Amino acid sequence: MNKHALYHKSDSLFGYPIDKDTVEIRLRAARGELASVMLVYGKKHLFAQERKTLAMSVTASDSLFDYFTVRLKLVDKRLAYIFLLTDTDGNNYYYSEDGATETYDFSFGFYNFFQLAYINENDVMPEVDWLGRAVVYQIFVDRFYRGGDGDAGYINLAWGAKPTPKSFAGGDLYGITAKLDYLVDLGVNTLYLTPIFTSVSNHKYDISDYYNVDAHFGGNEAFGELMSACKRKGVRVILDAVFNHCSEDIAQFRDVKEKGAKSKYHDWFVIHGDKPTKKPLNYEVFSECDYMPKWNTANPEVQEYLCGVGEYWIKNYGIDGWRLDVSDEVSHEFWRKFRTRIKAFGSDKALIGENWHDSRSYLRGDQFDSIMNYAFTKAMLDYFAHGTLTTPALCDKLNELQMRNMTQVNFMMLNLLDCHDTHRFYTMCGKNENKLLNALAVELFMPGATMVYYGTEIPLEGGYDPDSRRCFDWKNHAFTGRVKELLKYKKLRALYEGDVVFACENGLFIVERKTRGQTATLFVNNTDKSASARGVTVAPDGYAITVE
Amino acid sequence: MNKHALYHKSDSLFGYPIDKDTVEIRLRAARGELASVMLVYGKKHLFAQERKTLAMSVTASDSLFDYFTVRLKLVDKRLAYIFLLTDTDGNNYYYSEDGATETYDFSFGFYNFFQLAYINENDVMPEVDWLGRAVVYQIFVDRFYRGGDGDAGYINLAWGAKPTPKSFAGGDLYGITAKLDYLVDLGVNTLYLTPIFTSVSNHKYDISDYYNVDAHFGGNEAFGELMSACKRKGVRVILDAVFNHCSEDIAQFRDVKEKGAKSKYHDWFVIHGDKPTKKPLNYEVFSECDYMPKWNTANPEVQEYLCGVGEYWIKNYGIDGWRLDVSDEVSHEFWRKFRTRIKAFGSDKALIGENWHDSRSYLRGDQFDSIMNYAFTKAMLDYFAHGTLTTPALCDKLNELQMRNMTQVNFMMLNLLDCHDTHRFYTMCGKNENKLLNALAVELFMPGATMVYYGTEIPLEGGYDPDSRRCFDWKNHAFTGRVKELLKYKKLRALYEGDVVFACENGLFIVERKTRGQTATLFVNNTDKSASARGVTVAPDGYAITVE
Repeated sequence: MNKHALYHKSDSLFGYPIDKDTVEIRLRAARGELASVMLVYGKKHLFAQERKTLAMSVTASDSLFDYFTVRLKLVDKRLAYIFLLTDTDGNNYYYSEDGATETYDFSFGFYNFFQLAYINENDVMPEVDWLGRAVVYQIFVDRFYRGGDGDAGYINLAWGAKPTPKSFAGGDLYGITAKLDYLVDLGVNTLYLTPIFTSVSNHKYDISDYYNVDAHFGGNEAFGELMSACKRKGVRVILDAVFNHCSEDIAQFRDVKEKGAKSKYHDWFVIHGDKPTKKPLNYEVFSECDYMPKWNTANPEVQEYLCGVGEYWIKNYGIDGWRLDVSDEVSHEFWRKFRTRIKAFGSDKALIGENWHDSRSYLRGDQFDSIMNYAFTKAMLDYFAHGTLTTPALCDKLNELQMRNMTQVNFMMLNLLDCHDTHRFYTMCGKNENKLLNALAVELFMPGATMVYYGTEIPLEGGYDPDSRRCFDWKNHAFTGRVKELLKYKKLRALYEGDVVFACENGLFIVERKTRGQTATLFVNNTDKSASARGVTVAPDGYAITVE
Repeated sequence: MNKHALYHKSDSLFGYPIDKDTVEIRLRAARGELASVMLVYGKKHLFAQERKTLAMSVTASDSLFDYFTVRLKLVDKRLAYIFLLTDTDGNNYYYSEDGATETYDFSFGFYNFFQLAYINENDVMPEVDWLGRAVVYQIFVDRFYRGGDGDAGYINLAWGAKPTPKSFAGGDLYGITAKLDYLVDLGVNTLYLTPIFTSVSNHKYDISDYYNVDAHFGGNEAFGELMSACKRKGVRVILDAVFNHCSEDIAQFRDVKEKGAKSKYHDWFVIHGDKPTKKPLNYEVFSECDYMPKWNTANPEVQEYLCGVGEYWIKNYGIDGWRLDVSDEVSHEFWRKFRTRIKAFGSDKALIGENWHDSRSYLRGDQFDSIMNYAFTKAMLDYFAHGTLTTPALCDKLNELQMRNMTQVNFMMLNLLDCHDTHRFYTMCGKNENKLLNALAVELFMPGATMVYYGTEIPLEGGYDPDSRRCFDWKNHAFTGRVKELLKYKKLRALYEGDVVFACENGLFIVERKTRGQTATLFVNNTDKSASARGVTVAPDGYAITVE
């Protein structure tokens, strides 16, 4: 047995409560090496005297590991446990905090058993359950549709022309309201808008007034109308919380530019000196952008200010959550406070981080609900666009990603193929509509929300920013109907609550979602030959879905 | 190369800031398999273009793994990195979030490099630096010394007789004040008192009034005198925070017993019904003790109440920190709030959890500073008492324990051989004074605080509770001088700030602590034959210390 492969930590994503009475326990072992794993468990204070056993089963495997899992309904909220492993040669090992051993002294177990010491309800990671049903349409507002009739003097890009970093095409919130029926018809039930607050840029990630929607987008009035329309039609709205940095034009930073260290806002930013200077750059900024000063989110006043913004748009307009921009560069301490403040409006208010990397340190229940699932994006690119993942390797990779987080978190993930910060997926896979649709089908079958970047359905092409932010083309496209057909499956109970299993059979990539009385299965053919499995034949580059 | 053995996660104890500009990176690999590990790093936003490399070195090895470590002073607070591994056959691998691969595409690194996205000062785990210098003397108050002349009617145990669970021997806080010079002379600079607040029991873990010291112990007046004496003599004081549960006699629980669900304190506890009943037990308690109802620390009113208690004894008496009883059964959410409230009085106020198990989920900087190091206790028992660890295995085990937490946490650990909740170490090792002293020497050489359970120095014997809580014997003991000689070494700079290296040479167990210009080395002979290493000869069951 490869002892190096064994992994378990309690009070982590390998051992955690699903709800106040149920825990999920995971154990990792080298793939194929263990014939069985038993959970040996009991009440914490009586473990030396009384124990039960429960068989665990492999619920996911990646290229290196099998993950044995079990769910356990607790009678006593204090759980002590170790594992009993049997390898394929029939050798037995106990596995405790002291590692794999041939014997185990239960009388001294209190020193080295694993434990979930006590399930406190306020430590359980709760699930925002609408996220699992959400088809989230991401809109880069300036490029979607112009519905208002306000001042057009700022528009410098003809609709449909190739955008530059400084282009304004005139899209606004009135335009989104005007197209809401189109989106609902497409299968969308949630909007995620890139920033809408006052800003000099087209992307508005450099905000100068967090309390007013940009006049180009129609101001607060247009947003109020959009929210009313969305409420009527049952569409949820997520806004972009840019709390890592702001615009150099914001009042607080202007005050510091004027008064230096004497400004009461000096400590709202991270300035190494009196007044901020650009050459040399003496203050912290986003990336290399001197016009985007970083907020000092260690300052309680800044924390209060940004929490206030977060609350304002919920309280006054009823938005359903925040996507958190550059969230991994903002302090954990701030996010903990922010979560407390936002969740006071309801546990269903969603908090989704823009974290591109393994983010388990943000996803423990005290900060975000989930993140944008860029690791999934990369897997889709590697499989459909780069061809660097075989079908079995894709199964391994997606299983590995499922094992990065608690099950609750997986069911809240914001899955995506692309967004305003990446190349268009359609362009990455050689403008192959079938591949795009196949990838979207896989995304749809992933636990969590399905994010569709505006224009995917027509399909819009585009390289890296600013090319990925082209104007929506409002003529009819045959592809739109195919997307709409696909998105309908999101309503299946199996896709909302079913466990997920990835498989490779006869060259087909298969995703099965199974719940009480319903099984939905996706068959994707990423080859140039027709292939069949489980009685289903799929054309080259095609997909099929069965529901039983 | 055993790919299964590789482990690294960023923003965890494998990658974390030591201070606002310095990060420590650890990589785990199978022991002896890697010839070299290079950290390949750069600014997060420029990683595709510009990278540097830095060699990592093995700073600890356990039975299965080598831990490669490096410290890096950051110029930019945003760090991207991967690892370049070379195995002993000369094969190279890159190691990223996608695992070990033969090639690595830096142009797509933003999807799968490791990162410390931004070092926010308020996320850095700070070090309470006096803990590393502390010799902490733990006192079970009723059994140490009687100094007061108050009512003695409750005393039912003759001093020195064998205690029962209900014994009262009359020790009090006046007694501790009276013996303070003795303790300072012994080398003690910190007291940790088991609970002193009002309670019907001798141990006082069932508190009925958190604002008043028990009258048997001399009340608040005696505590004030003790604190004054301690301040004068430079002795710090840690009290026992029993916040998991209280006494059924506390006013709030009495109110619930009387009024049931109508009591405003009903939700201060976890009661499954109207009024609390013992048969059947319908409320949550500590262990199986129906007279110790569990606080509902999810209730904000309870949180406020207990935080208030935590603050009161700092504000009014100037205590230096809290040892947190049954801390692993109290919610993380509560401890986060408690930390914020307590640390407002100074980052040097210590918070030490009574966690018996791997507690990385509590030791991230947002909850405790450290825990009682029971995993170390077990290693000492296994080596000196049970004989189940060989000397090389002890090195492996202690290295493994060092790698369970961030370096800062290791330097705050409350190391111990025994306490009021265990058998006496002296008894466990067959009443062998040499073994006890050797174990204490190892404890002294561990990074962190050295806790000495009252009576260790005489040495007191005792089995499990209540036998481990015998009365102190105040006649002279030759052993006391040996303990005093040993504890003097705690003042060495090397023992306070030096890195630790464990070794086995010629059968001797060696602990080396090295810092700027000073190396202290402990040689322990746990065999029945004289042995020598590095020019130092150690008698059977003896120890030697060199300082250079």
